[in-house]
Amino acid sequence: MVRPGGRSARVQASVHTAVRELESEVGRDALTVPLVAQRAGVTPSTIYRRWGDLNELLSDVAVERLRPETTPREHGDLPSDLAAWAEQFLDEMASPTGRAYIRDALLGDPDGGNAGRCSAYAAEQIDVIVGRAKDRGEDTPDVETLIDGVVAPLMYRILFRPDGLDADYARDLVTGVLERGAAANG
Amino acid sequence: MVRPGGRSARVQASVHTAVRELESEVGRDALTVPLVAQRAGVTPSTIYRRWGDLNELLSDVAVERLRPETTPREHGDLPSDLAAWAEQFLDEMASPTGRAYIRDALLGDPDGGNAGRCSAYAAEQIDVIVGRAKDRGEDTPDVETLIDGVVAPLMYRILFRPDGLDADYARDLVTGVLERGAAANG
Repeated sequence: MVRPGGRSARVQASVHTAVRELESEVGRDALTVPLVAQRAGVTPSTIYRRWGDLNELLSDVAVERLRPETTPREHGDLPSDLAAWAEQFLDEMASPTGRAYIRDALLGDPDGGNAGRCSAYAAEQIDVIVGRAKDRGEDTPDVETLIDGVVAPLMYRILFRPDGLDADYARDLVTGVLERGAAANG
Repeated sequence: MVRPGGRSARVQASVHTAVRELESEVGRDALTVPLVAQRAGVTPSTIYRRWGDLNELLSDVAVERLRPETTPREHGDLPSDLAAWAEQFLDEMASPTGRAYIRDALLGDPDGGNAGRCSAYAAEQIDVIVGRAKDRGEDTPDVETLIDGVVAPLMYRILFRPDGLDADYARDLVTGVLERGAAANG
């Protein structure tokens, strides 16, 4: 006897793995539900029942890939921690793979839940960085201010306006939002 | 004899019209290339040849619908002009229709050209507002600063983080970016 939760988790893991393998073997555009089902050892109707369609499945897989695997590295002060994080975030999200995952995450996401998860990942990472700065006694902007001042311009430009998007630009966003915070505090 | 440019423009107009009509009659999810072709009076292969697939066609139609139909209204000073524009931009883009068009525009857009057009529309509108302010002798931030400070947070939150997104938030973004500009100049 296998518990339903256990079977469900195994189906999810094998279907996600099948998608990732097939993406690298045949390319994303050649994926079909029957192909994924065959590789995962499930029936196509299992996939349709659980994910609705291929786009929703690819959105779930993309969000899994966009989940940060480590906590942000610590460099000793807020400006350095944020600048390093912003540069790495830009690197990952603006890469061809990153862009493809962001697009997939948005695409098969009728209720916006997966897009919300992407944003929550960034907010959680920033929250860790801000928490460390507070522990060191540094003044910090709040997380939503940093989302607006750093994450939003990076993601907007990755999706809509990629010209001139580089590490300097990411660092300048961080410098700008921190200078404004310092000016506001006196 | 009809010139190729003339025929091409007519095909585009009739296919776009067919998409818009069918979207309101049967819903976006029921659209297929053969259905659109039949309504537009062209063959499916005409559509495949010109647009690649249904997603690319829907992306083109979406960008057409996202094109602003009027220049921004004039209220007499930069803060009022920008606040009114930002509120209207949020209204339009955050509506269910606006969100669907943004999603469609991003989806069938392998080279990013349509996403770039969406961003160019916003930049052009802001450029008009900034130009008027300069003509009146007002200090103004540059267009890219306003994209980062107003458009990017609005679009990021529409797509990824919609909680608390309202007219007050849009106005606060405008106030913030103008205050920072004033502080930098004084």
